[in-house]
Amino acid sequence: MLEIKNRIRVMNQQYPSILLEKAINEFSKLPGIGRKTALRLVLHLLRQDYNDVESFGSSIITLKRDVKYCKTCHNISDTDTCQICANPGRDRSTICVVENIRDVMVIESTQQFRGLYHVLGGVISPMDGVGPSDLQIDSLVERINNEEVKEVILALSTTMEGDTTNFYIYRKLEKSNIKLSILARGVSIGDELEYTDEVTLGRSILNRTTFTGNI
Amino acid sequence: MLEIKNRIRVMNQQYPSILLEKAINEFSKLPGIGRKTALRLVLHLLRQDYNDVESFGSSIITLKRDVKYCKTCHNISDTDTCQICANPGRDRSTICVVENIRDVMVIESTQQFRGLYHVLGGVISPMDGVGPSDLQIDSLVERINNEEVKEVILALSTTMEGDTTNFYIYRKLEKSNIKLSILARGVSIGDELEYTDEVTLGRSILNRTTFTGNI
Repeated sequence: MLEIKNRIRVMNQQYPSILLEKAINEFSKLPGIGRKTALRLVLHLLRQDYNDVESFGSSIITLKRDVKYCKTCHNISDTDTCQICANPGRDRSTICVVENIRDVMVIESTQQFRGLYHVLGGVISPMDGVGPSDLQIDSLVERINNEEVKEVILALSTTMEGDTTNFYIYRKLEKSNIKLSILARGVSIGDELEYTDEVTLGRSILNRTTFTGNI
Repeated sequence: MLEIKNRIRVMNQQYPSILLEKAINEFSKLPGIGRKTALRLVLHLLRQDYNDVESFGSSIITLKRDVKYCKTCHNISDTDTCQICANPGRDRSTICVVENIRDVMVIESTQQFRGLYHVLGGVISPMDGVGPSDLQIDSLVERINNEEVKEVILALSTTMEGDTTNFYIYRKLEKSNIKLSILARGVSIGDELEYTDEVTLGRSILNRTTFTGNI
């Protein structure tokens, strides 16, 4: 009953202004933003000063127009070479392979990794039409051949697509002398054991590590 | 533990690009959008074509710059007089008083009201520093004195602020010959009785209507 009511309401929805409707249409293209949320966001912006709205709109246009991708690791950057690749203090013998720039930011925030990155731009996913040639895998191989790389850490998602990509990269690098490693899998810190899934828990028993008294 | 982890992560969060950070800052000013969601939205836009991003950014700037408010009812509009006020087919003797333009759209979508509107721009709320002079109440009184209005329907929220505003308007229009009415309160259509709050249910028993066989 409520669903029917809502459906009728959406069908009849008319906006009092074409400009408003256009802005709502644009906002509702964003992931996870429906027409109701879009309306709320647009009306919020409409209540702000013109300068604030102008700054909002132009920030995203400027970003799209002027942003660069690092020519070495393909991370997002303001310059041709990103801050991480340009940093002489980073360990150039270790490359961490990630799916996207969000993963770079997450790993950086742990402050546990001092090497360089390589952003693939996704994972191999035949269902979504993403093949190896759509990703920065060739440039990874090239980079490894040219530079003094000793270890490649695969830090992709623990999904089927991530595992496929891991295996593809493994086959590509098999013949080189590079050490390939993968993120440790196990029980999350702060998680209660009873809520950990069986596969993770099973693997964390098989791959148990020696306890030396340090946590 | 998890909370501490997240807090540390937020503190250490560094963006690889100043342009990206600026766009994320702008997005996270929107209501209900945190920094994580802002990042997701900005990265989504970054994957679109330049024309699409340009169209997104300019739609909101154009809206803010060019949108008008109807000089009669203060509804949002592309022209000086909104489509509803300009429509000769609408009943000019009935004015429905609402809080904001979203309420106009919701009532319009019911297709049950053929009169005109008056958008107050909020409700009286001393806690938020909103007094009667901040709202379009004087222009409502003026409008009623000048036009051939017979009935004013108060369609404000059923909150304390809404009730205060209802009462304030009642006192302002008391001496005029205008019929003042208020939306029917009762059990929502599609709602189960056991989930209806006691106040609503109690009032709907007191204000029960004669059943004539039609639902």
